[in-house]
Parts: sequence; C-alpha cells; structure tokens
Amino acid sequence: MKKIINDPKDVLAEMTSGLVGAYPEKLEQIPDTFVIKRKVNAQQVALVSGGGSGHEPAHAGFVGDGMLSAAVCGQVFTSPTPDQIFAAIQATNEGKGVLLIVKNYSGDVMNFEMAQDMADLEDISVGFVLVDDDIAVEDSTYTQGRRGVAGTVLVHKILGAWAKNGASVEQLETAGKELVEKIKTIGVALSGATVPEVGKPGFELAEDEIEFGVGIHGEPGYRREKSKSSKEMAKEIVEKLKAEFQWEKGDSYGVLVNGMGATPLMEQYIFFNDVKAILEEEGVAISFSKVGNYMTSIDMAGLSLTMIQTDQAILDALNMPVDTIAW
Amino acid sequence: MKKIINDPKDVLAEMTSGLVGAYPEKLEQIPDTFVIKRKVNAQQVALVSGGGSGHEPAHAGFVGDGMLSAAVCGQVFTSPTPDQIFAAIQATNEGKGVLLIVKNYSGDVMNFEMAQDMADLEDISVGFVLVDDDIAVEDSTYTQGRRGVAGTVLVHKILGAWAKNGASVEQLETAGKELVEKIKTIGVALSGATVPEVGKPGFELAEDEIEFGVGIHGEPGYRREKSKSSKEMAKEIVEKLKAEFQWEKGDSYGVLVNGMGATPLMEQYIFFNDVKAILEEEGVAISFSKVGNYMTSIDMAGLSLTMIQTDQAILDALNMPVDTIAW
Repeated sequence: MKKIINDPKDVLAEMTSGLVGAYPEKLEQIPDTFVIKRKVNAQQVALVSGGGSGHEPAHAGFVGDGMLSAAVCGQVFTSPTPDQIFAAIQATNEGKGVLLIVKNYSGDVMNFEMAQDMADLEDISVGFVLVDDDIAVEDSTYTQGRRGVAGTVLVHKILGAWAKNGASVEQLETAGKELVEKIKTIGVALSGATVPEVGKPGFELAEDEIEFGVGIHGEPGYRREKSKSSKEMAKEIVEKLKAEFQWEKGDSYGVLVNGMGATPLMEQYIFFNDVKAILEEEGVAISFSKVGNYMTSIDMAGLSLTMIQTDQAILDALNMPVDTIAW
Repeated sequence: MKKIINDPKDVLAEMTSGLVGAYPEKLEQIPDTFVIKRKVNAQQVALVSGGGSGHEPAHAGFVGDGMLSAAVCGQVFTSPTPDQIFAAIQATNEGKGVLLIVKNYSGDVMNFEMAQDMADLEDISVGFVLVDDDIAVEDSTYTQGRRGVAGTVLVHKILGAWAKNGASVEQLETAGKELVEKIKTIGVALSGATVPEVGKPGFELAEDEIEFGVGIHGEPGYRREKSKSSKEMAKEIVEKLKAEFQWEKGDSYGVLVNGMGATPLMEQYIFFNDVKAILEEEGVAISFSKVGNYMTSIDMAGLSLTMIQTDQAILDALNMPVDTIAW
C-alpha cells in the first residue's frame, strides 16, 4: 500500500483537521468530535448527514449555504457514533428542528436513529430521510434493502434548497421520502478500494476484469466479467435504470456521473457522452447533468450513474446557487 | 490497461463532446475544433489557455465568467495546433484583444506563438504569459527552463478577475509576468500515468517507491526513494519551496494542494494538514488555501504543492466569485 498518510489510525483526525484548516472561513469542527459544520448557522431547518469516511468530498464537502448544515464523519467505512450525531443536531438546531439524511447501511441507520431518540428527549424536532438509491442488488454486506450511494448528494442539494426556502421538518421529511423514490444509481468498478488500516484492497479484480454493481465500500456487485468499452458499460447500466424507471419517450431526467476516486475526469466525460447518446436514442431528455467525484470509495477506480426524475421544483432546487467546497 | 474509454483514438473527441454535453448552458465547442469556449463572450480582454489533454479539469473546467474565455484542448499530452489556438482567439476576441496563458512546454510555446503571429496579421492584439512554476528541475523532457504545472490554475483565476475588472492586454501581460514570479510548485508521484493510446504507464515505481519532482506528463523528477509519511513528504517539499521563496516570519502565502488524478481527497487533506503545521512553525501565514484535483496527470497517483506570495490585490482576485465547473 502506498498512500499519502501518516499513522493509519490518525487518518480521520488529520483529514478533518486538514479540511477545516483549508477552508476556515466556511467550516468549523465541533470540539472533541469529527463533526464539520457551517461557521454560521442558518435560520432554517438544519440538514445533517454523515457516515463513514472515505467517500470524500461526501459529506463534509457539501456543508454550506443551500446544502448541509453539518456532516458527521465516522472512521473510514465505519458509522459515526450516536453521541457525535447528537452533537451535530444540538450544534445546528436553531429552534426549527433538524433533518437527518442517512444512507441505508445498518450501522448508520441504527446510530442516526439513536441520535434522533436522544434529540427527542431534549424536545428537538428531528426528521429522518433514508436514501437507498443503489438498484444493483437487494440487501448487501452492510445493508438490509438497497444501499445508499451517490444519489444521496442530489438529496442533499434538493432538500438543502427547500430547507433554505423555509420548508418545515415535516415537509422536508415527506418531500424527502418522495424524492428518494425518484433517484436510482448503479455503479461499475475497475479496482477495489484500500482502507488505510487494512492496507490492501477489499477485493481484487484481474487486469482485464470489471464488476457491475459494486457498492461504495466494495460490497459485491451482480456480475464480474471481462473489461468492456465505455459504450458497452453505459448500455448495460442505462438498461438497468430503464427497467426500474420504465420511462417513456419525452420524459426528462437529471444525470449524475460520479467518479469513485481513481477514475480521471477524462473517462467520466467519455462515459457521460455515451450515456447521453443512448438517452437520445431512447427519446429521454437530459434536464440536468453533472460529472465528477462526489461520492467516492477512497481509491477505487470506477464510476456510477445516477438518474433522477425531474420536475420544475426539483430542477429549480438543483440549479439554486450554493456556497460549498464540492458541489 | 483498464480504462472507461472506447477507441483510444477517439478520446479527445468523445471527452470534449461529453464535457460540453454535460454543461450545455455554460460551454460550447467551436465547430471542427477541440476549442471549448463560454457560451456568451464577455465584453473584456479574452483569456485563452490550453495545452495537451489529460490534465482535466484543466483547462476547460476553468472556462467561465471570471476566469478563462476559452480552452484549446490538444490530443492527450500533445500541444494543440496553431490553427485551433487561432480559432479560439478569433472566436473570443470582442475587440479588446486576447491574452494567451501558456504552460512552458516547447510544443505549446511554439504553437501559441504561431497563433499569436496569425492574429497579428489580422490586427488582433494578443498578449502572452508563460507559466513556469515547477521548481523541481531546470529544463526537462519537453521543456527548456522550468515546466508549467498547477500554478497555472492560479494564474487563470487571478488574471481572470483582473480581466473581468477591465484591465487591458498590456496591463494583463505585465501583471501576468510579475504574477508568475510569485508562484512556485513542486510535486511527488506514487505511480505513473497511462496515456490511452500507449496503454501502459509512462514510468513505473516499485510498490514501495515514490519520486519527488515528477512532471505532469511523467517527466523525471529529482529523486526516487522509499515511500515516506505525508509529514516527511510535506517537509521535503516545503523546504524546497522555502529555498526558492526565502520567506521570513510574518510573510503570507496562498497554498494549493493539487491531486494528480488517482489520489483521494482524504490524502490531499492529510497532506494539507501537514503543510499547514510546518508553515505555522515557520511563522508563515496561510492567506488562501484550496485542496483538490485541478491540474491532473490522467490517472497518476500523487500530488503537488503550489505556494503563491499574496498581497491584497491577489487575494481579492483569488476570492472573487466565478462561474466555472471546476474552480
């Protein structure tokens, strides 16, 4: 393993220190925690997300005006503890309540629910939106049901806009549940990710192999096969998404191509180009698009494609300016 | 080689098509070229940059209000041709002239100078700023003098702000030459980059080896050695920069940590954290900072550290909002 780190045990502490140190005018760390919050709270429902680290820029890169109020950073690929989530709730609540946005992993769900219970005892109103956008497999290594992956970033963006525009906890929770139904993702991996404390990749692919449907912690996908062209990968993935969405000619969708960490933008743009051509053939209009590293898996090579059914309210929310380091 | 591409010969065409396709409201491609320009020209001196592809998001990701007017994309690691650069000059000139910002590689310098001559014949006023921020080595594989690397992005940002604020071609050229003197960079590589048409890395490092001073096309650095901790890498690199800048306690510098393509943000933040600690010991204040992938080398693992001597005019320019996909 070659990595630019010091003691693997210090990765989380040094990474959060570096992140806040690089953007001191925007972000601060709650003392004695790995919670990254906005320097100045907004007078609105606070949006709190988080999860294991290793997915940077998610989630701390999306803390800022118009998106998240705080991100709770767990150890690498490990859920943050309930007390840290509760600290984020307390530090961001301005009396209008807090909405938790949680990717569907058993540890995250349990710990965010415990923090919600702790907030209940303090009479803080806390809503909960579970994101399970990964259609690759049902149930997985750390998940009952479907996994939460890159589509979570779109949930941050859209609910962030609506929260800024004054929606209540109840409204955001209801809207968030409807929104998650409209977002689906599927990924493909060219290599495994190496957790610093482990020191070797979580899985290995041969020099000519790829795997469809791998999760963002290296959870198994649905098929391993010989490497293919970008066009063929795009065809496979778009077909899977079509089977879920059952779209018709004339429908409009937003598209997010997300790099997993080690895949250059060059390849992500080429892949987007292929996706666009297929959707044109399908008669599906692209109403919003974005390409880049948003929800990574440390140093994994690969990417994911997220599609979202859009209407005007969703598009307005996606296009609203924000002040974050990574959107 | 595993890459998400189709025919390696089509990488440039498909990448630029994907890039413009993903951001159609901001960017457009000049027909029959690989020039990416703003959808709407600004009434100011136009800033044109470019070079070989493989450094994404540089340079097309910095096209937009407050930064570049156009980016000319060459084949991977290959200079764009004079006719394409000239097409960019013609398409962006609004009668106030054009400033070319060119990284110091022999092919780029020659081709951008030829385009400048072509513009001369048409009475278009064209200035030229050469960026040679890489202090690792004097002369190199494709360069006489020092190479131009990640500091170029800061030149785009600062001159972009000044151009927007109304500076003339002559003012920008003079200011640009002074600015480049204040910017120095040095990098470290953990692996080589694979050009798609070549199919294997340009150089290889052993599983426990790193190389200091490698260029963004895999040009040799100044020392290959056993892998080190982030702290030790930061110490080596900051000492090299100190020897150039000869700073004193109380001086202020901006800091850019730039990922080379395959190095996760996690590691970049840890490295920034170490740089910050060293500068604090030195009594040097960090007046501006930014961490992420800005000037990559395809899928190379590694990063570079750029430092810039700042004054208030430079800081104002660095902090001015822009509308680009990658700043």
